[in-house]
Amino acid sequence: MRIVTYGAACSLDGYIARSSGAVDWLLWSKDVTRVNSAYLSRVDTILMGRKTYEIGRELGAVATPGYTTYVFSRTLERAPESGVNLIREDATAFVADLRAGAGKEICLMGGGELAATLFAADLIDQVGVNIQPLLLGEGVPLFRPMRRPIELELIQTEQLARGCVYAVYRVRRPGL
Amino acid sequence: MRIVTYGAACSLDGYIARSSGAVDWLLWSKDVTRVNSAYLSRVDTILMGRKTYEIGRELGAVATPGYTTYVFSRTLERAPESGVNLIREDATAFVADLRAGAGKEICLMGGGELAATLFAADLIDQVGVNIQPLLLGEGVPLFRPMRRPIELELIQTEQLARGCVYAVYRVRRPGL
Repeated sequence: MRIVTYGAACSLDGYIARSSGAVDWLLWSKDVTRVNSAYLSRVDTILMGRKTYEIGRELGAVATPGYTTYVFSRTLERAPESGVNLIREDATAFVADLRAGAGKEICLMGGGELAATLFAADLIDQVGVNIQPLLLGEGVPLFRPMRRPIELELIQTEQLARGCVYAVYRVRRPGL
Repeated sequence: MRIVTYGAACSLDGYIARSSGAVDWLLWSKDVTRVNSAYLSRVDTILMGRKTYEIGRELGAVATPGYTTYVFSRTLERAPESGVNLIREDATAFVADLRAGAGKEICLMGGGELAATLFAADLIDQVGVNIQPLLLGEGVPLFRPMRRPIELELIQTEQLARGCVYAVYRVRRPGL
């Protein structure tokens, strides 16, 4: 079974972007580059919702050579750029198949709506956050309301440069 | 000037209690006792809003010997228990006076609504969180929406027992 990790850099109050989608407040450092590179070396597949895609698109091309990228949308009619695969069918069934198949780890990009669906379907294995030293006040939340709590196990935490706190959790599945 | 610290234990998705007010999911340990004791040894005054008071009250008496406790409410007509001071006037002016006076540090209890008012008035100096390894899904949020971002400086972080992450921040005041 492949590992599906949901995560993002977020403000201490849990936002991943301003309401406008802007992420100009994110703090970059060699630590962030190192942590991101180590993570992405284990990944070959990237998932995101349509809104997250569009925010990413404003920053440049989203498709990255070496990764298979899927964008989930019921409103888009065709893949919005070369190298991006549009998935219009049910995200839960698609990700369940993907996760059960062969391949490296799967990165679910922040955005929250797709993640809430996949958390509810118990298809997320890990959660990673890079908590920025900032209260953004309002914006796009990393986590959406969910009907049931999800227990986590901390597997790694590290203080990064510029006051960022990195933490990675494993989703506990008490029944298993 | 006395230091006003806002903080609480919270889930990774930023809740300090279930919607019912229940905090049965909080993880306790010797680390938590040590961190709390170290912090409370620097404090002599505790502030909270009426809702937070009522949640605390269900767990027992809120007033603690050795601390001056203030509960802010426009609806309560008298102090609800011995040792608790009811403040019905404007919280901002009251806390500004308190902060400018003599005394040890001031602890602002989680609950969010009073904190949002005091953040807006620039009366909070530090933020402390003990992030529990859990997505609660819904409940009482630690941070409420605010109109302006608040920049923080990480001054301490530590991994506590049972997968909790403790972090303390100083509020940056760029103009000063």
